[in-house]
Amino acid sequence: MSKVRLAFIGFGNVGQALARLLLRKEAELLARYGIAFQVNGIATAHHGVAVSDQGLDLNQVFRIMQEKGSLNILSNTAIDDIEEFLKISQADVLFENSPVNYETGQPAINHLRTALNLGMHAITANKGPVVHAYFELSELAKAKGKKFYFESTVMDGAPIFSLYRETLPAAQLLRIHGILNSTTNLILTRMENGESFEDAVRYAQSIGIAETDPSGDIDGWDAAIKLAALASVLMEYPLKPQDVEREGIRKIDLQAVEQAKLQGMRWKLVCSAWREGNSVIARVAPQKVPMDSPLYNVNGTSSVVQFETDILGLLTVFEQDPSPDTTAYGLFADFIHAVT
Amino acid sequence: MSKVRLAFIGFGNVGQALARLLLRKEAELLARYGIAFQVNGIATAHHGVAVSDQGLDLNQVFRIMQEKGSLNILSNTAIDDIEEFLKISQADVLFENSPVNYETGQPAINHLRTALNLGMHAITANKGPVVHAYFELSELAKAKGKKFYFESTVMDGAPIFSLYRETLPAAQLLRIHGILNSTTNLILTRMENGESFEDAVRYAQSIGIAETDPSGDIDGWDAAIKLAALASVLMEYPLKPQDVEREGIRKIDLQAVEQAKLQGMRWKLVCSAWREGNSVIARVAPQKVPMDSPLYNVNGTSSVVQFETDILGLLTVFEQDPSPDTTAYGLFADFIHAVT
Repeated sequence: MSKVRLAFIGFGNVGQALARLLLRKEAELLARYGIAFQVNGIATAHHGVAVSDQGLDLNQVFRIMQEKGSLNILSNTAIDDIEEFLKISQADVLFENSPVNYETGQPAINHLRTALNLGMHAITANKGPVVHAYFELSELAKAKGKKFYFESTVMDGAPIFSLYRETLPAAQLLRIHGILNSTTNLILTRMENGESFEDAVRYAQSIGIAETDPSGDIDGWDAAIKLAALASVLMEYPLKPQDVEREGIRKIDLQAVEQAKLQGMRWKLVCSAWREGNSVIARVAPQKVPMDSPLYNVNGTSSVVQFETDILGLLTVFEQDPSPDTTAYGLFADFIHAVT
Repeated sequence: MSKVRLAFIGFGNVGQALARLLLRKEAELLARYGIAFQVNGIATAHHGVAVSDQGLDLNQVFRIMQEKGSLNILSNTAIDDIEEFLKISQADVLFENSPVNYETGQPAINHLRTALNLGMHAITANKGPVVHAYFELSELAKAKGKKFYFESTVMDGAPIFSLYRETLPAAQLLRIHGILNSTTNLILTRMENGESFEDAVRYAQSIGIAETDPSGDIDGWDAAIKLAALASVLMEYPLKPQDVEREGIRKIDLQAVEQAKLQGMRWKLVCSAWREGNSVIARVAPQKVPMDSPLYNVNGTSSVVQFETDILGLLTVFEQDPSPDTTAYGLFADFIHAVT
């Protein structure tokens, strides 16, 4: 049996969690799906690039990463161009998880385009390429008979895109509603326990879920990007993050949180997108959510999405306890879907 | 293009809702999936049997059903044997929704077995065949290169089985947890508004969701059957309804409901199944659910299921507003999955 050859661009927390998951599930992949694999290439930002047509030894790779060494020693040739890296890797599947510019989706879009043009399946956990190039990349994938998948971009690996794609055939999505940004949800949850906005932000930074500059989360950009990705893919409507009406959580102070509590409500950063005539309207804004809403009990870093279709009653999916491991699982599931 | 030929056994609320849905989505099925269909046969309990190899006129069928006439007038020959019906129908797909005996799963199991043996896909909304013959019928289906699907048997068409099958590849299900019986959930919800148990039961009967003898719901049998179906299929463990530890809601009186409320809790009929060594333990029992549980906000006839896997955080799926239309959608989705 021939092995599926894999390449990684970006090998941080998520890439490494994926590699560990692949190793852990190696026997099961073979037994249940007939999939054998080898990793032909890994390109990192700060730890060099390694390629081997015999397959890299992942345990050796982990050791080098841990010692903060360079993967270059695993290759015979030095490679500093990503296109060259992809060509030499001869991979069947690219996992693209490099740092991305959210305003342009680059360089991830270029990486994914190159991979598809070389006949690889292109899988990413980066939202940028979905909001900036979903239609282009999916058409390219289709033309090449390959897959462009991105399950992990919204709700960290909980199967939102594949739920819609695989389990709701011939359903028309009328409305999406949910809580998609973990950082703001964690901040609002902690403020309900009396913590100030500033302290809650610092806490979110301390556990690594908010950036040094937390404005992407707090001002609703991350939520808007995710909502734009959902609308583009599931409603087939090319919505850009800047098309989303957007209000962050800065105006929600402790007093507002306390007042909502007295009313039996909770402040949540709510994302909604719905069809209006031939277009889709989308909004991210703080809302007071009543106790009988499925959004009410979404605590900490959990998230939730609701689908209203022309066919089923309201369908709600909740994810608890996201982590790099769940993001890795989304990539892993995309991989199985692509090659089976 | 050849048309996919369909047969219905049972043509009550659900069968008719499915037929209407097929008509409504006819153009979309063709455009999006390349599926054209015709209904070659309908066998009812009280309105006769019709078969036509040219395809029946569904609008004519609806008219006859509405006038409480007999479908026999649409056929040239009288048919009173189901096996003969299936043979003559020459169908590619059977939708089986006849009245079922829950202790044996019959006659649905025989219908589905016959259909598979004749080379048809076999699709049902009946739980009986899943708990009593899942392993036999899926193996038969596999041997015949056909599908045995039953999405609508649990959570009325919300995609629980296909969610697991299609979106969580290589995940091992460790625990299922949820609220699966609408009638008891509606009764408990109404009791929270001060209605007596007896009145709440009568209300559930008046809107057609509880039977004249409501004990199947109230004593937890329906929940146990659904839990056994989930465990059999998703945990691949042959659990029978009688293997489920089972306690109904009869002991929950208004005082208990009121007391829970004061504690910020709600009584729910909770279903759980989990692995223990090589076996699966399953339990249906009333439990007080705290406010921060995703089960807390499940009101009226809604339902919820949680999956704990070796791979993702807790994944929760919540269905609101079930109806014969949502059950019909489960059958419709099974149909698309089977023939594409």
